[in-house]
Amino acid sequence: MDINKRLEDLREVMRREHLAACIFPSTDPHQGEYIPDHWKSREWISGFNGSAGTAVVTLTSAALWTDSRYFIAAEEQLKGTEFQLMKLKIEGTLTIAQWLGKEIMQSRHPYEDWTEVAIDGKCSSASEVKALIADLRKENGITLRTNFDPMKMIWRDRPMIPENPVEVYPLEYAGESAHDKIARIRQALRERHADGMLMAALDDIAWTLNLRGTDVHCNPVFVSYLLISSKNVTLYINKVKLTPEVSAYLKAENIKVEDYEQVENGLKDYFEYNILLDPDEVNYRLYEVVKNKGKMNDLQKTEIVEEESPVKRMKTVKNEREIAGFRSAMLKDGIAMTKFLYWLSGYIGKPEISGLTEMSIDQKLTSLRAEQPLYRDISFDTIAGYGAHGAIVHYEATPETDIPLQPKGLLLLDSGAQYLDGTTDITRTIALGPLTEEEKKIYTLVLKGHIQIELCKFPSGASGTQIDILARQAMWREGLNYLHGTGHGIGTYLNVHEGPHQFRMEWKPAPLVAGMTITDEPGIYLSGRCGARTENTLLIVPYMETEFGKFLQFESLTLCPIDKPPIILDMMTPEELAWLNQYHQHVFDTLSPHLNEDEKTWLQEACSAM
Amino acid sequence: MDINKRLEDLREVMRREHLAACIFPSTDPHQGEYIPDHWKSREWISGFNGSAGTAVVTLTSAALWTDSRYFIAAEEQLKGTEFQLMKLKIEGTLTIAQWLGKEIMQSRHPYEDWTEVAIDGKCSSASEVKALIADLRKENGITLRTNFDPMKMIWRDRPMIPENPVEVYPLEYAGESAHDKIARIRQALRERHADGMLMAALDDIAWTLNLRGTDVHCNPVFVSYLLISSKNVTLYINKVKLTPEVSAYLKAENIKVEDYEQVENGLKDYFEYNILLDPDEVNYRLYEVVKNKGKMNDLQKTEIVEEESPVKRMKTVKNEREIAGFRSAMLKDGIAMTKFLYWLSGYIGKPEISGLTEMSIDQKLTSLRAEQPLYRDISFDTIAGYGAHGAIVHYEATPETDIPLQPKGLLLLDSGAQYLDGTTDITRTIALGPLTEEEKKIYTLVLKGHIQIELCKFPSGASGTQIDILARQAMWREGLNYLHGTGHGIGTYLNVHEGPHQFRMEWKPAPLVAGMTITDEPGIYLSGRCGARTENTLLIVPYMETEFGKFLQFESLTLCPIDKPPIILDMMTPEELAWLNQYHQHVFDTLSPHLNEDEKTWLQEACSAM
Repeated sequence: MDINKRLEDLREVMRREHLAACIFPSTDPHQGEYIPDHWKSREWISGFNGSAGTAVVTLTSAALWTDSRYFIAAEEQLKGTEFQLMKLKIEGTLTIAQWLGKEIMQSRHPYEDWTEVAIDGKCSSASEVKALIADLRKENGITLRTNFDPMKMIWRDRPMIPENPVEVYPLEYAGESAHDKIARIRQALRERHADGMLMAALDDIAWTLNLRGTDVHCNPVFVSYLLISSKNVTLYINKVKLTPEVSAYLKAENIKVEDYEQVENGLKDYFEYNILLDPDEVNYRLYEVVKNKGKMNDLQKTEIVEEESPVKRMKTVKNEREIAGFRSAMLKDGIAMTKFLYWLSGYIGKPEISGLTEMSIDQKLTSLRAEQPLYRDISFDTIAGYGAHGAIVHYEATPETDIPLQPKGLLLLDSGAQYLDGTTDITRTIALGPLTEEEKKIYTLVLKGHIQIELCKFPSGASGTQIDILARQAMWREGLNYLHGTGHGIGTYLNVHEGPHQFRMEWKPAPLVAGMTITDEPGIYLSGRCGARTENTLLIVPYMETEFGKFLQFESLTLCPIDKPPIILDMMTPEELAWLNQYHQHVFDTLSPHLNEDEKTWLQEACSAM
Repeated sequence: MDINKRLEDLREVMRREHLAACIFPSTDPHQGEYIPDHWKSREWISGFNGSAGTAVVTLTSAALWTDSRYFIAAEEQLKGTEFQLMKLKIEGTLTIAQWLGKEIMQSRHPYEDWTEVAIDGKCSSASEVKALIADLRKENGITLRTNFDPMKMIWRDRPMIPENPVEVYPLEYAGESAHDKIARIRQALRERHADGMLMAALDDIAWTLNLRGTDVHCNPVFVSYLLISSKNVTLYINKVKLTPEVSAYLKAENIKVEDYEQVENGLKDYFEYNILLDPDEVNYRLYEVVKNKGKMNDLQKTEIVEEESPVKRMKTVKNEREIAGFRSAMLKDGIAMTKFLYWLSGYIGKPEISGLTEMSIDQKLTSLRAEQPLYRDISFDTIAGYGAHGAIVHYEATPETDIPLQPKGLLLLDSGAQYLDGTTDITRTIALGPLTEEEKKIYTLVLKGHIQIELCKFPSGASGTQIDILARQAMWREGLNYLHGTGHGIGTYLNVHEGPHQFRMEWKPAPLVAGMTITDEPGIYLSGRCGARTENTLLIVPYMETEFGKFLQFESLTLCPIDKPPIILDMMTPEELAWLNQYHQHVFDTLSPHLNEDEKTWLQEACSAM
């Protein structure tokens, strides 16, 4: 991969178009976190393959913005290229607009009066592009061209948009028909005084229609748009993806089908007073199509209702069938994890462990999961980080980085699976032998944080921003912290990251209500030394109702022992210890009937009270 | 006070003007929390005198929105009037726009096709009026007239805008000259790409100019506007308020003076490219004056930079002189409070206590404060609530409600003073004799919450929304809660409520940094039974610096024992108890040199370790 050659090709196009810079976000026309290869322009131009990051290329310089999860990985991957790493949320880091302001002003190249910057408006949300336009304007009036995709000219072996077949997601797992979901969506639209909406988020479309696909790595979704009006529902999709079964299903559900590329025409022909467009979800290009309707040709004007898509929150509240599916998936995942941990226990503290590597244990774990009924795929690329690799938050072992394990230190293992009845996400940090005091301390602080979230009781409608600190208070007292969120929602055989609710330091105005799933995954990462993270997936359930309203609590869905040897007992409060012992008893009681005698014996010890 | 007569007069004007409704917010042209009597239209029309609330009157109905602090008080005060109470933040409560939509649609009066509603655009912020316009439009296209103040016609004995003299606030307490503050403000404006700003918040103006006044009850501010451009600073003020000393001071500081009513002309003549207007601070009328400049006459267009005023945050970070002033004021306040508590202790558990009432103890406390050097005023109306009155969050005893104390139950006492060197705010809840288990339980839960905030360590820049839960987690586990914020900033001989930083459940994007003051005041209120609140004022100070950045902690500035008899020891963690004992030791060590022997002996017992 010759990044410098690619930059050269890009700059030739830029000079032809009189562009001072090009911006490549990590997003696609559907604002997914994980995207089909076709839209991985940022990765192609910079070489950085993390899930979040923005590359910016001027005629004389290049920079890449990413967040703390990827600082170490990005530094590695950008080595030897022109790209400088810009660390988001670190004091002193310029914004993209500020950096462009400086670069374009200071540039001494022969085109210094060019002040136009380009972005592909199709691949960024309306809100992002609008904010960027405003920010750039403040930098001496830099302008943004939004209809330009240089990749069309320079990315010669660009992968196609996927054409994988779609399948129907059985009602037995979905728990609610597409018909009923659409009726609820229309009701939500009426409450927002909207006549219709355009859905662009692939998981929202899959959830609404009870369909699944395989277009995106680990995310069972398919590339499409869904346009809902007060009378019609139209799916914009490449028709080769539709099997006869799916076509018949769509017909029965009264859903029209148009070609994927026809969505702009669909919006032009949309004939109602207004339409809800979620500016964080709908790309700028489509937003502009609607906005300009009144201005051009003879198209009827359509008012835009700019609000968060109601589907986002609707799908996060699981129905009874979905919750039953989660429990079933978590049981299977717990069995697979326990079998794996039992297998690994044979190596712990022994020299033979050096026969294992980060990648080989990932393969072992995945093969154990694959033996479980209804297994479909992993839900994200396993993070198996040994020793210092554990400090790389989103580490993914590759043949180049893979290292053998040693009978000491911590192994951080974050993994999950897609089962047809539910999606899982679990992190365990495991002592492979003797530990340093530092390793034990960070492990215990993380566990305390994890348990404080598990213990939390809160009024219905509280936000994850309020609750987040419970996971951090113990480590903050030691001057330690982690810069990622503490938890995210999880889909039902859908994306492992599902919003908008979260636990995080930043504000997320998404009330927590009963029926939501959310992970609890604090961590501490000491760069170059070690990392620890402990994660369960929680279900929000009722707690009590008083004169002060409804109160909620968490139920741990994840069933897997939490490694005990690294725990410094003196640092745990009696309440935290009581939670751990109770959780372990529950894990043992639930999993043991599904294990053989050896596994059971091991689990009994792993779950014994401290 | 005949509310019905006033409503009749108002409706006559409304019919003449073809208005379907009038809206009366609690704010004034300067968006203060406490306002001069001249602008108390909402109180005049509804009879409700709380600090927050909005009255809406249609031709056939009337309603008043207020928050949980005032539910009980408002219910009392609205009794016998047409006004129905609308409880903010309670599920099912309609918004003003929703209610108007319903009322205007359903009204069967002869003017049912009138769909115009009026508000005095001078007395509401630009952001509130803009949001209201948008919300009303959704309700079948109700329109808002913003230039109408019916009070001019019907409020015959309306008080004048105050003309009290202004005084210079000595540099010895302010710690930074007006000249230097204005230089910092201009620097902040440059960072926001703004050439100037209009300041409307009275405390911001007082802080910037190092001036104080007495125009607002308990708040040492004066009615005025301040217009800052890149070259000039102009104070718009009624010139009778300026003593020769103040006039000379302003001249020396190079600050121009214009009449208060000239501010609109000042904005019309403002001759720079843009101006920063904080839409939450500047009233809609002045905002529109700037917005319309390009459209009318030959006035030069001025771009509006809509951002939070930088002054808001600047003044919350106290300099060394201000911090020294706070410490001095807190010492004096602690002495006064201790003398008061010692005096009260002579009555506790004794029948003689029935000779005291809520109002008489308030007088006693205020007289003890008034004996302290540099005392100027109370900082807000004392809340002395005995028994069930303690459950009325913002209770203010009046001759009608005043009750004698009894030798049992809890007395909630929230009070504070304005000293020339600092402002104080403290709440203690005191057992007057035997307590019920319920009283002890809520008292202890509140104290636990208070201490958890005191113990918190956090990264510089964290928000109060993140930290707030620490005060609530223990009570949430019992299904208890309080709906007010947990803490607010405090000015330096300025308003006792100073923003934008706060501890609260709602999002407040105001990073906490070293040098800020903030109160810590959780409470529990059991309607009709009892209430408890414990409040100290905290200073944010450095804690440690690590590879994860700067961490901060709180230092309690308030010096006053926390009543021990109501504490249920079993409910306290060892850490909470250790904090309490350490705090009490500090209180005793600091206050005892300033007390007589009897007071000292009492304080020693009050501060002894548990």
